[in-house]
Amino acid sequence: MSGFVLKGHICHSADKDRIEILEDHYLICEDGICRGAFAVLPEAYASLPVQDMSGKLIIPGLSDLHIHASQFGYRGLGMDMELLEWLEHHAFPEERKFADLDYAELAYGQFVRHLRRSETTRACIFTTIHREATELLMEKMEESGLVSYVGKVNMDRHCPEFLQEKDESETRLWLEHTAGKYQNTKPIITPRFIPSCTDGLLYAIGRLSREYDVPVQSHVSENLSEIQWVKELVPDAVNYGDAYAKFDLFGKDGQKCLMSHCVYSDEREMAMMKENGVVIAHSPESNMNVASGVAPINRYLDYGLRVGLATDVAGGSHESMFRAMIHAIQSSKLRWRLLDQSVAPLTFDTAFYLATRGGGVFFGKVGAFEDGFEFDALVLDDANLDHPQQITTHERLERIVYLGDERNIIHKYVRGVGLF
Amino acid sequence: MSGFVLKGHICHSADKDRIEILEDHYLICEDGICRGAFAVLPEAYASLPVQDMSGKLIIPGLSDLHIHASQFGYRGLGMDMELLEWLEHHAFPEERKFADLDYAELAYGQFVRHLRRSETTRACIFTTIHREATELLMEKMEESGLVSYVGKVNMDRHCPEFLQEKDESETRLWLEHTAGKYQNTKPIITPRFIPSCTDGLLYAIGRLSREYDVPVQSHVSENLSEIQWVKELVPDAVNYGDAYAKFDLFGKDGQKCLMSHCVYSDEREMAMMKENGVVIAHSPESNMNVASGVAPINRYLDYGLRVGLATDVAGGSHESMFRAMIHAIQSSKLRWRLLDQSVAPLTFDTAFYLATRGGGVFFGKVGAFEDGFEFDALVLDDANLDHPQQITTHERLERIVYLGDERNIIHKYVRGVGLF
Repeated sequence: MSGFVLKGHICHSADKDRIEILEDHYLICEDGICRGAFAVLPEAYASLPVQDMSGKLIIPGLSDLHIHASQFGYRGLGMDMELLEWLEHHAFPEERKFADLDYAELAYGQFVRHLRRSETTRACIFTTIHREATELLMEKMEESGLVSYVGKVNMDRHCPEFLQEKDESETRLWLEHTAGKYQNTKPIITPRFIPSCTDGLLYAIGRLSREYDVPVQSHVSENLSEIQWVKELVPDAVNYGDAYAKFDLFGKDGQKCLMSHCVYSDEREMAMMKENGVVIAHSPESNMNVASGVAPINRYLDYGLRVGLATDVAGGSHESMFRAMIHAIQSSKLRWRLLDQSVAPLTFDTAFYLATRGGGVFFGKVGAFEDGFEFDALVLDDANLDHPQQITTHERLERIVYLGDERNIIHKYVRGVGLF
Repeated sequence: MSGFVLKGHICHSADKDRIEILEDHYLICEDGICRGAFAVLPEAYASLPVQDMSGKLIIPGLSDLHIHASQFGYRGLGMDMELLEWLEHHAFPEERKFADLDYAELAYGQFVRHLRRSETTRACIFTTIHREATELLMEKMEESGLVSYVGKVNMDRHCPEFLQEKDESETRLWLEHTAGKYQNTKPIITPRFIPSCTDGLLYAIGRLSREYDVPVQSHVSENLSEIQWVKELVPDAVNYGDAYAKFDLFGKDGQKCLMSHCVYSDEREMAMMKENGVVIAHSPESNMNVASGVAPINRYLDYGLRVGLATDVAGGSHESMFRAMIHAIQSSKLRWRLLDQSVAPLTFDTAFYLATRGGGVFFGKVGAFEDGFEFDALVLDDANLDHPQQITTHERLERIVYLGDERNIIHKYVRGVGLF
């Protein structure tokens, strides 16, 4: 038996409404799997080395369900535009550069270094149409120790010619090269969105998802103009989600499916997502920055949908999942105040849930410290966030999220392996 | 003549819509006053020492128009409540502690240390009702080198008895002690808000403002329940602003007046603020966190009102004015999307204007690098914000605001004095 014990203040989500705090507990990791947290170290684990993090907070690693590695270089730039304008003027010209492997080496190197140091332990990543650059990123991700799904993007229309692929052949080759190659890094079928793919390409990659048993990720119901456009492009679909379903890309029959945004999903789209087990990647900062709106997350949660959180760099400006949590709370308050008081704002505890076990579900038993969960953990030191009064451990956690950054992470574990 | 020259990329607001960027310019400081920026160092300043900040960005210091020093200890805490609930359960019990000077020493020490290291060069500060603790803070602020107005808060109703003062006598004593005492630190009359002050107290402090020629700051039209309450408390006022005006606390006849929030100011309140020269302290994060709403800043600017930016810690979670700029932009986008497309979202350039010369106006000629302006400046190094592509200086500035923090500030000058 290989393993270790972390001693400290264990914080994780008991359920979507409540963070459970276990002070001065022993958290057990055995062969990369969590064996629970205990007030007294159980006899069975007495031989494991104990790392004393007394006074520190220990939380599950955070899952970033949607981030564009190729856009990382221009995070925090060009934020005065709406989605379709931003794609044309900013995203597309930059993506072209990833045909050049030297450029990809530089850009993806920066991306992986930042992500490794961040709160994120698992990520679902978009790249570009370029197969070789995508394979380069996957290699770097595997070296990083993080767990990820990485998606070579599919596009063959409504974008500059230099970003259009002929057919699905490069995608097939990429799956040949990468499916099953790595322990922590897996391919995921990634149509950019309906407008950028012809029916033929969508059918083909839907079939590839089945053939290689690979999950699917994309964008859905993000922006009103985009939704209108999809209606015109796929007139027989009852909604945007159904447009994916027509090409077998919406999570039926055991296909794992992750959809970003869902700002404007209606009852029927919600029903489809529930039936198909689609996981929603809520991207609150991006939805603010490109003025898309605010997804009604508590409505989705109450309806029984599976929802996680995402930074969506570079629609979002920053890779920090702490910031994504704040953005989720703040934008939900404005949605409540300005638009619709039938959906309650998100509490801190629910935002924490989204960032941990809410999103972790896409990776399996991930995002909490229950027996049998994979052991992803961050050890947090908040000594620099000084305060004059006594505060509770729950308050310390809230403060770290609002005020802290990567400096507050002193240790990071993924699948039981310490990254730093 | 005492002075110096900074060489680097000078960035400041030409007007509310446009940041002017002067690359590789010489910025002149003479006796604490800016003498402009020049492509070639003018003969007249040839004898001044030149500090070479080539490649770095040099921006005006930022003015935080509204921050509660006494709430700094619980920044980033208790963010799941609305305004009136938050005051009762969180703010009021904590404020009581400032009767104890040892506690004030500890808490205000932490506040001033953070503020000194932050983007802020000037601040308008609320304390508590406690005179001695307020004087202690003023001493610390003066030592810090920052420029500030500090307001001992007035309250004598609708709050716990331990936070009610008998009358204005402590305020008078405080003005006796501090008006004219410091070079950089000035008192400002600070009724917390209408609900917390009886008519008698408001009349008395209005008179004190005139007697000592001291400006006024308070909160106005922040939250719908609060506005309704003020309507009941001052039934003959036509709006919330007019309730202050009745007690000579709304900036007429040369009284400098600063009002926070203005989320719901109507046409008539706008007209009064324009006529009286009231400066608005826009506090976007706080307005999100306590679910108040979003102030229509572009409407106010187009109407000719004077608007600056504020963190409003601890309604806002963080003392960073960079973050306040992002919050201003993001919340204006959601206001536009969810509520009212007649008011355009804020651009990055306008948010920068609000944080610099928009708010600087409350302090005089402050917030730009024009000849005759006071010399407040930050030198920014963005080397840690790596990127693979060429970007413009304007883009570098946008990135620092979205991604940076106090680590990116390598030098800070206030009134020509280098703080670090």
